[in-house]
Amino acid sequence: MNQEPNSKQISTAVIRRLPRYFRYLRELIRSGVSRISSKELSERMNVTASQIRQDLNCFGGFGQQGYGYNVNHLYNKISAILGTDRGYTAVIIGIGNLGKALANNPLFEKRGVTITGLFDISPEVIGSNVGGVTVSDFSEIEEFLKSNKTDIAVLTVPKNQAKDVAEKLAECGIRGFWNFSNMELSLKEFNVKIENIHLGDTLMTLCYELAKSDDEKNKTM
Amino acid sequence: MNQEPNSKQISTAVIRRLPRYFRYLRELIRSGVSRISSKELSERMNVTASQIRQDLNCFGGFGQQGYGYNVNHLYNKISAILGTDRGYTAVIIGIGNLGKALANNPLFEKRGVTITGLFDISPEVIGSNVGGVTVSDFSEIEEFLKSNKTDIAVLTVPKNQAKDVAEKLAECGIRGFWNFSNMELSLKEFNVKIENIHLGDTLMTLCYELAKSDDEKNKTM
Repeated sequence: MNQEPNSKQISTAVIRRLPRYFRYLRELIRSGVSRISSKELSERMNVTASQIRQDLNCFGGFGQQGYGYNVNHLYNKISAILGTDRGYTAVIIGIGNLGKALANNPLFEKRGVTITGLFDISPEVIGSNVGGVTVSDFSEIEEFLKSNKTDIAVLTVPKNQAKDVAEKLAECGIRGFWNFSNMELSLKEFNVKIENIHLGDTLMTLCYELAKSDDEKNKTM
Repeated sequence: MNQEPNSKQISTAVIRRLPRYFRYLRELIRSGVSRISSKELSERMNVTASQIRQDLNCFGGFGQQGYGYNVNHLYNKISAILGTDRGYTAVIIGIGNLGKALANNPLFEKRGVTITGLFDISPEVIGSNVGGVTVSDFSEIEEFLKSNKTDIAVLTVPKNQAKDVAEKLAECGIRGFWNFSNMELSLKEFNVKIENIHLGDTLMTLCYELAKSDDEKNKTM
């Protein structure tokens, strides 16, 4: 296995910044850039060069003094740290508009995650084709997971169903939850990882910024 | 205007935590709780009580020693800081699956933001009703914004159209962008606030956690 140095001491903050490196490096590769200094990368990403060096040093550092980073090498390293080479699989539970948006989104493929099944309880959706996958009846999930090893469940079910659905899935061996149900899940009785997504939080941050700027305008008037 | 003490020195980290307080306090109100200690709140939110006291002190502190927080008062204060009482309005640009999911989501209403218009360029969508609002032709956006003061644009347009669309909207007076296009917008020539959303980032964090736990399992085996 690929053991990264000091991987235990890496802070959550650094981990949360890595996907951003992943995206920028991907863009660089696509535009044909093969080498970049921390200064250039910092200008593009709008963070300080020392922050970049510090972040990447957590993983052993990938740059050479006065030479910069090999973009491909760095991208591959960060991809590996982020698990994109593990062949993880996912099912989406709840094929409403958000479920459909996610099922059709290339974000899974870009991150090495394969969608193997879509599930819903509504007869109107079951049997339809979304992003190349046929939607199955949620009542068949247990059978499906027995014969298809699946790592991740994407939950876009209504809030009041989230806990029951998640517990059932955890019992069937799902190990990771990407949870859009707006119900904060913890599932402490299971050994699972959970990302609780609250889309509205960033709308509030935006409103805060607008309100602050309105107040400042009013103060100077 | 409601000026909050020390509002200038409040860190981004604290601001980013406030929506979470907003959500938890909302839940407390709904379950009939009117008073809560920082200890109880910290257990529910899974952060330390001292973190909570510190965060809320940034805004002048709302608790009384040995008495706890008045939930309604605290909720109203935090709501006000987050601008939910400003009557902000929003348009959604791009009514695909994600646009539809957002238009139908109560998250706007809960945060005091009114959706006043939905826009798309596809004849298949224009004229249809989504969440009670009729989808308009994007070519009419300029006219619309002239007669309907609008604060926020929610962008769910394809990546390659995001910059042009956003610049046009900024010229028409939009001040805030909630950007789901996966194109990192900066719009430095305009005085606007932007939240660039990258849904895939949290999927990567989840995959990182899974990969780490796999490695640990393999180490001990």
